Amino acid sequence: MAGLLFVVSGPSAAGKGTICKRVLAETDLELSVSATTRKPRPGEEHGKEYYFLTEEEFVQTIENNGFVEHVINFGCRYGTLVKDVEERLARGKDLILEIDVQGGYLVRDVFPDAILIFLVPPTPEELERRIRNRGTEDEESIQNRLQTARREVKCLKDYDYLVINDDLDVAVEETKAVIQAERCRVTEDKYIQVTDIFKES
Amino acid sequence: MAGLLFVVSGPSAAGKGTICKRVLAETDLELSVSATTRKPRPGEEHGKEYYFLTEEEFVQTIENNGFVEHVINFGCRYGTLVKDVEERLARGKDLILEIDVQGGYLVRDVFPDAILIFLVPPTPEELERRIRNRGTEDEESIQNRLQTARREVKCLKDYDYLVINDDLDVAVEETKAVIQAERCRVTEDKYIQVTDIFKES
Repeated sequence: MAGLLFVVSGPSAAGKGTICKRVLAETDLELSVSATTRKPRPGEEHGKEYYFLTEEEFVQTIENNGFVEHVINFGCRYGTLVKDVEERLARGKDLILEIDVQGGYLVRDVFPDAILIFLVPPTPEELERRIRNRGTEDEESIQNRLQTARREVKCLKDYDYLVINDDLDVAVEETKAVIQAERCRVTEDKYIQVTDIFKES
Repeated sequence: MAGLLFVVSGPSAAGKGTICKRVLAETDLELSVSATTRKPRPGEEHGKEYYFLTEEEFVQTIENNGFVEHVINFGCRYGTLVKDVEERLARGKDLILEIDVQGGYLVRDVFPDAILIFLVPPTPEELERRIRNRGTEDEESIQNRLQTARREVKCLKDYDYLVINDDLDVAVEETKAVIQAERCRVTEDKYIQVTDIFKES
């Protein structure tokens, strides 16, 4: 049976990274390996940490609709490869993708069965507190992030599940419950399998 | 926000009763109080253990489509009252109903948002072993139950989730995961609530 694709999305500082790391450590889900134009660091292997592409290869892949989503960070490109996701799902692996709100609900255009989880902090005040606690941004950038978050929350309607990241342990547990429940969902494949086991002799 | 209605169904000896009891003990879900024509036992209160109805009241309720489902057991009638379920859901309580396969998927005719969980033993051989272990039935009745189970499994296609009751603890955990996940599902109400909290100032 093909694997399931889970997408965890939400405004910045909602806790996507932390929650995905915990879920990966506590379940048998896999991450997709991304492509990047960043140079490999010592010890990094092509196809393991990243697929290392040249600028030309990356742009060519964009033009061929080869990415689920892609971004530029500090001058380097990063993208989730459709082919990598497809191959893992075909091998029956369940995958988790951590994607920003703009990219999250576009995943469904490529993978209609993807399960979309939206993560939010409990309040905008708590979001502000978390961004300030990072201590890495100036006032303008903080205000900018907050405004973006308020706008992004409206994308919730395109998602399947809402996880409110108030208590981290609860948020991790809820995310894992969504994964476990979706694994129990009745599908055509599962119906055939079970009725075959119980077929009248 | 209105409560959620979970229905646990499946062939006899699949473990519905045991799993519902465990889920009720380990979560804040409620049972609906059934109606019966059975006489109250000492200490039983109308509206607490059961709604005690006369035969005439019960039949009248059937005629008024007042039951989600109803059965006769050892000459007494038992039924789940639409009104009782509606009132609890309106008070925001999440409910669990344990219903046989024939009745299970009919719940959706009355409650379209009900979440239907189908419980099966891992194999027909294991089902047979469990029925024989009860030691309460003759050979004909055992064969009858097995044939019924094989037929009932085909109803799986009308259900949302499949829980295979091989290891009881795993089956309870999966049922609880379905409940927790469904509580995270994005609904119109939840969308309004969250976007209101994050509305642009």
